[in-house]
Amino acid sequence: MKAPDGTVIVLGVDPGTARTGYGVVASGRRTLSLLECGVVRTGPRRPLADRIRHIFEAMQSIIDRFEPCVLSVEKVFQGKNPQSALTLGHARGAVLLAGALAGVQIAEYSPTAIKSAVVGTGRATKEQVGFMVKTHLRLVSAPAPDDAADGVAVALCHCLIGDRPG
Amino acid sequence: MKAPDGTVIVLGVDPGTARTGYGVVASGRRTLSLLECGVVRTGPRRPLADRIRHIFEAMQSIIDRFEPCVLSVEKVFQGKNPQSALTLGHARGAVLLAGALAGVQIAEYSPTAIKSAVVGTGRATKEQVGFMVKTHLRLVSAPAPDDAADGVAVALCHCLIGDRPG
Repeated sequence: MKAPDGTVIVLGVDPGTARTGYGVVASGRRTLSLLECGVVRTGPRRPLADRIRHIFEAMQSIIDRFEPCVLSVEKVFQGKNPQSALTLGHARGAVLLAGALAGVQIAEYSPTAIKSAVVGTGRATKEQVGFMVKTHLRLVSAPAPDDAADGVAVALCHCLIGDRPG
Repeated sequence: MKAPDGTVIVLGVDPGTARTGYGVVASGRRTLSLLECGVVRTGPRRPLADRIRHIFEAMQSIIDRFEPCVLSVEKVFQGKNPQSALTLGHARGAVLLAGALAGVQIAEYSPTAIKSAVVGTGRATKEQVGFMVKTHLRLVSAPAPDDAADGVAVALCHCLIGDRPG
């Protein structure tokens, strides 16, 4: 939803079966501000279907509360293990589905694009991402844990380089 | 849902982003019968989030109509390409989520277990699976296309070797 003053709410998500980081950023004409960030955690001993359901319902709850205009999600898998990729796909599918069912525009960015947009280099470290997230949003400290900072970085990437929906 | 006569409805699913095969089998004390089978297809040019949504809503519709007691899903990914595994995970997550949200018991079987249960050998061909699906269910011909037969085989596997919920 776009506010009357032109502010756009962007939900950024870094999906994972154990930890899904997210950040909600309000992007105004000249300002960027962090509304909320956090990590959705699921227990490793719970059945996979329950973990996916937990992630899906957490995303639905965040979308209900903030009514984001855009869901920005990290695009590719960098690992080499098909089994890990398959498991990650389940979590990522739940995140995309929550957005699609709510009619939210979905934007996808590669990890390199996210780091380039937020830090200025596609090879930035976790610490550099955290520092630049803090700087862009004028925070006292970088969001913690790293997963939350990563979620905020995905949202920031869209705010900095993405197409603004009308 | 378990019918008064002890019949258990099992929904078997072979998930895929392009084609998700499914079969609905009624398992009575002495009989197995096919209630429905088919393939949920999604267009390759549609955004991934839309395709996942389509699979999810199709599964919800099937679950609503048949009220299965068990959702039986193929367990592992046999390929070696992490990108294909990631994409498949999105579809599989949508299927599991539809089951979890409806409170359906979820059973997972490896491809080898499915072939062993239905055909008698873990190395069965597509043709052998189709033939034995036809034989078990006393059909005039094997379900077509192969994806539908695979969905029916996953359901049959649970009927033949799975724990019957009480």
